Amino acid sequence: MAKESTTIDVGEPSNVTKSSSHIVVDGKKKRSFVVANAGGKRGLAIFDFLLRLAAISATLAASIVMFSAEETLPFFTQFLQFQASYDDLPTFQFFVIAVAIVASYLVLSLPFSIVTIVRPLAVAPRLVLLIFDTLVVTLNTAAAASSAAIVYLAHNGNQNTNWLPICQQFGDFCQIVSSAVVAASIAIVFFLVLIIISAIALKRH
Amino acid sequence: MAKESTTIDVGEPSNVTKSSSHIVVDGKKKRSFVVANAGGKRGLAIFDFLLRLAAISATLAASIVMFSAEETLPFFTQFLQFQASYDDLPTFQFFVIAVAIVASYLVLSLPFSIVTIVRPLAVAPRLVLLIFDTLVVTLNTAAAASSAAIVYLAHNGNQNTNWLPICQQFGDFCQIVSSAVVAASIAIVFFLVLIIISAIALKRH
Repeated sequence: MAKESTTIDVGEPSNVTKSSSHIVVDGKKKRSFVVANAGGKRGLAIFDFLLRLAAISATLAASIVMFSAEETLPFFTQFLQFQASYDDLPTFQFFVIAVAIVASYLVLSLPFSIVTIVRPLAVAPRLVLLIFDTLVVTLNTAAAASSAAIVYLAHNGNQNTNWLPICQQFGDFCQIVSSAVVAASIAIVFFLVLIIISAIALKRH
Repeated sequence: MAKESTTIDVGEPSNVTKSSSHIVVDGKKKRSFVVANAGGKRGLAIFDFLLRLAAISATLAASIVMFSAEETLPFFTQFLQFQASYDDLPTFQFFVIAVAIVASYLVLSLPFSIVTIVRPLAVAPRLVLLIFDTLVVTLNTAAAASSAAIVYLAHNGNQNTNWLPICQQFGDFCQIVSSAVVAASIAIVFFLVLIIISAIALKRH
């Protein structure tokens, strides 16, 4: 009886040591996993921030270029006004306003992006960014696509509806407007990458 | 020594029972959490599936309505053709093709949606759906917005560019085309909800 209990006495501490050391190893593994995970997420968050800066440049450029697009031809008659500016076409007005809203949103989203850099494992700011990015990319796409349709019309006209191309007269204006549409389209690509980054960062949680 | 070892002998089983019961409670809690989580996710997945069906109807309707939009006026002259159809305007052709692609994508996405119902905790199909939904909603928005710009022009014309409204002659055609654009816009709303659902389902993981 005494011998048996002695063997138990010996067995117990060795068991305890084993299991506690096991726990320590587990904790270390978990911790190093969390650290690696946080590191990967921080990398994504920094890329997110840089992409937002690039998208701000693209949308600001698009909006300002479209807003300042203007061309006055060096001749005029009594009845016709040979001047083109963005506010001659409601679609271009929509473009300026919508893309300006997108640029403002991007500036406002920067603090959230910084939060995801500082706290890479925080879920809430990621989710907020993902949802609002999705809503705003729709606005950005609508602005770019509608203006692209009008620019196409201005370049090529349409015989079936008797809409004549105006770019033959206002070549410079068309070129400026087209570059604004291209800048807005580049911003769309940035947004798509931003959304995919947010989705991957949410997944890894 | 013998007494001490006896107390240890008694203490050990009670300790084991305590700790093992503790583990059982923990396991039950974890399990019930996983079950509740899976239940919530399954609810989201079913809503996702139904939304996809609704979006398929909307996009199919939009594409077919636009494709079959046609109006022939009951009079004609030798020089002018008084007929309007979707392929008179390249933007409407783009609309038909783009929205048909969106509808096809939605049909192909149904199996993935079913996978998320059957296995609510699977992350990969969610992520695939989220990323492709985001890409496709951009295409859908581009189609709807560009056609909306042309429909607006057809309704109101533009004095500055001398583009006359064609809806005064082709009223029925304009109405049909407008309804196609509205259907595509409803599909955009469905897509936005789908993306938000996927983001929330990814987050809860």
